Amino acid sequence: MDNKQRALAAATAAVLCGSAGAAPDAGALRQVAPALAHYNEHLLLGEVWQRPELSPRERSIVTLAALIAKNQPQQLPPYLEQALDNGVKPGEIAEIITHLAFYSGWPNAMTAVQAAQPVFAARHIDSAQLPSAEVALLALDEQAEAARASMVQQNFGEVAPGVVQYTTEALFRQLWLRPGLAPRDRSMVTVSALVASGQAAQIGYHLDRAMDNGLQQAQASEMLTQLAFYAGWPPVFSAMPVFKEVFTKRTTERKE
Amino acid sequence: MDNKQRALAAATAAVLCGSAGAAPDAGALRQVAPALAHYNEHLLLGEVWQRPELSPRERSIVTLAALIAKNQPQQLPPYLEQALDNGVKPGEIAEIITHLAFYSGWPNAMTAVQAAQPVFAARHIDSAQLPSAEVALLALDEQAEAARASMVQQNFGEVAPGVVQYTTEALFRQLWLRPGLAPRDRSMVTVSALVASGQAAQIGYHLDRAMDNGLQQAQASEMLTQLAFYAGWPPVFSAMPVFKEVFTKRTTERKE
Amino acid sequence: MDNKQRALAAATAAVLCGSAGAAPDAGALRQVAPALAHYNEHLLLGEVWQRPELSPRERSIVTLAALIAKNQPQQLPPYLEQALDNGVKPGEIAEIITHLAFYSGWPNAMTAVQAAQPVFAARHIDSAQLPSAEVALLALDEQAEAARASMVQQNFGEVAPGVVQYTTEALFRQLWLRPGLAPRDRSMVTVSALVASGQAAQIGYHLDRAMDNGLQQAQASEMLTQLAFYAGWPPVFSAMPVFKEVFTKRTTERKE
Repeated sequence: MDNKQRALAAATAAVLCGSAGAAPDAGALRQVAPALAHYNEHLLLGEVWQRPELSPRERSIVTLAALIAKNQPQQLPPYLEQALDNGVKPGEIAEIITHLAFYSGWPNAMTAVQAAQPVFAARHIDSAQLPSAEVALLALDEQAEAARASMVQQNFGEVAPGVVQYTTEALFRQLWLRPGLAPRDRSMVTVSALVASGQAAQIGYHLDRAMDNGLQQAQASEMLTQLAFYAGWPPVFSAMPVFKEVFTKRTTERKE
Repeated sequence: MDNKQRALAAATAAVLCGSAGAAPDAGALRQVAPALAHYNEHLLLGEVWQRPELSPRERSIVTLAALIAKNQPQQLPPYLEQALDNGVKPGEIAEIITHLAFYSGWPNAMTAVQAAQPVFAARHIDSAQLPSAEVALLALDEQAEAARASMVQQNFGEVAPGVVQYTTEALFRQLWLRPGLAPRDRSMVTVSALVASGQAAQIGYHLDRAMDNGLQQAQASEMLTQLAFYAGWPPVFSAMPVFKEVFTKRTTERKE
Repeated sequence: MDNKQRALAAATAAVLCGSAGAAPDAGALRQVAPALAHYNEHLLLGEVWQRPELSPRERSIVTLAALIAKNQPQQLPPYLEQALDNGVKPGEIAEIITHLAFYSGWPNAMTAVQAAQPVFAARHIDSAQLPSAEVALLALDEQAEAARASMVQQNFGEVAPGVVQYTTEALFRQLWLRPGLAPRDRSMVTVSALVASGQAAQIGYHLDRAMDNGLQQAQASEMLTQLAFYAGWPPVFSAMPVFKEVFTKRTTERKE
């Protein structure tokens, strides 16, 4: 395509497919939903994003995870830009997408790659700056992993042997040990995806793991505030009893 | 863009991105799935939409809520056109989108704004015809709201203080009191979104509230018929036990 | 459109709307997420798709069902191509889409029709090769259907009379009896859609029915492996206890 064609193609997609940005331009938003424009400016951007319980970088990680888990590629590009501006490294974005291939499905990750490709290209980010497929893995806590694997094998080894096999081989002995995304951040991505996609039954294990990985309770709580806006109130209300249970259990265990 | 380019852009997006309408044109539908074309014409349009338990206006509200909650912008434009033709006011559509920013997440609402913008523009609907950000709010039932707030604070005040704060400030002391969408219709939107997105655990409270706001049992039942077609049978079957429980509780309480 | 315009339109959509394929081209994938490119080639394509527990044709059916149920039209076209290459007949694809109109909602099916239309057109598949709307139906097991209908009527007949009516008339006395998709394959589509969209509460009935329709336990287990990759680990982990319960119940009943 020549430049004129490229511009036309971009305009076409931007206008008609919604690839233009995280938000419609401010004019369109005010033209269709003036109250939402107001909430967007004053409540979400002006207040929620400024709350000190999570840094802008952490809010970007939570938001990207929610957008990928809910498969919303139209909204991704500006949030990817913002994430890079907020200090999320390109290699961390690559790891977030790879992680969510497993935790929200291959198609969501592939669609996210398509959304990220022009953002990376425009910033001259190439694969040399990203973690390789083969990297030296973080040390594994063999005892904890053996306990986890044994529990899952006992529960589901005969029900779904393939799932159990890849849970061990691909997830817990590879993906989680890749050093390009800190374990705490990997846990934030996982928990955010679980909350956003309404997978309440899977939150308990991963929130507990997140806090083992260094996530503070106040940070976990504030993830719910961010997710209420980016995934909606209902899945957050369904997640709150699980968060409460995990917080209570950990407090009780600490006291004993 | 000149006219020829604009036409090409529209054709591109229509053919390849699915922005063309609620349904593929009848020819494409018959070419790919003749049986579905038949069900579409005779069962869904010819029968379900004609059932008297809900008016066309109410079916449009339920359907828009489902499409926004499930983030299906490709299908939105013709349903927005139909909603306007069925008597849903532009200001009500603006309020539905704003409401669902909170009940299905900001990205869904932003994508809906993008879908609605050309529909509004073609009908010369501008922000002067829409509710302002700042409006005189409906009267609040202070006693009921105090009871709700106290219950949520007690359950989750320490688990997620930010969520609890905005639930009171932004949702129940603002959004729900905006007069541009009647409380009963706001409840229909909320319940439809909860059913469509499979949030069964959150339905009970909001269905009860919907009926307090004037929704009749026969209307609530028929929302499930409409949603079976627009969100699929499974989430409706997961919602039916909750509907049954609420209907039974209200009947029992009335008898006592 | 002339040929040059058509090529531009396709390129526009492919690059910017993600209609290009199941995966971004290999270059883009390596540029954004090298580790994911590696897992894609070596783990998913090189290993999972080669496992003998399900044939490529069966994996294609499971994958199409997941993509339609999760409304991922950007990823559909190459998987439709692959399904046809793997022996899924055009008429079976038409029936899968029609079936999922009911089991994942009309909008998902309509979006799938739009994705399938150019794939069918390019292969010169037209409606003459597809099952008609009116076909001679498979024989109904009247006794089993009477038991099902009676149970649903008793549970929900007063809660949602419209849903109960169409469940009988449209689903169990029509859709499930259409001969263009074998009952076992129709069950695979249904169960895959339920797992992929996180509808755990509806899985038990349909998995049991799938096995009545001839699905082997090892095949059902392997569907979970395929779905872990295409819908993500969390909904599969939420489905596993239900699969376990159905497997156990059927084994126990056989022994007694």
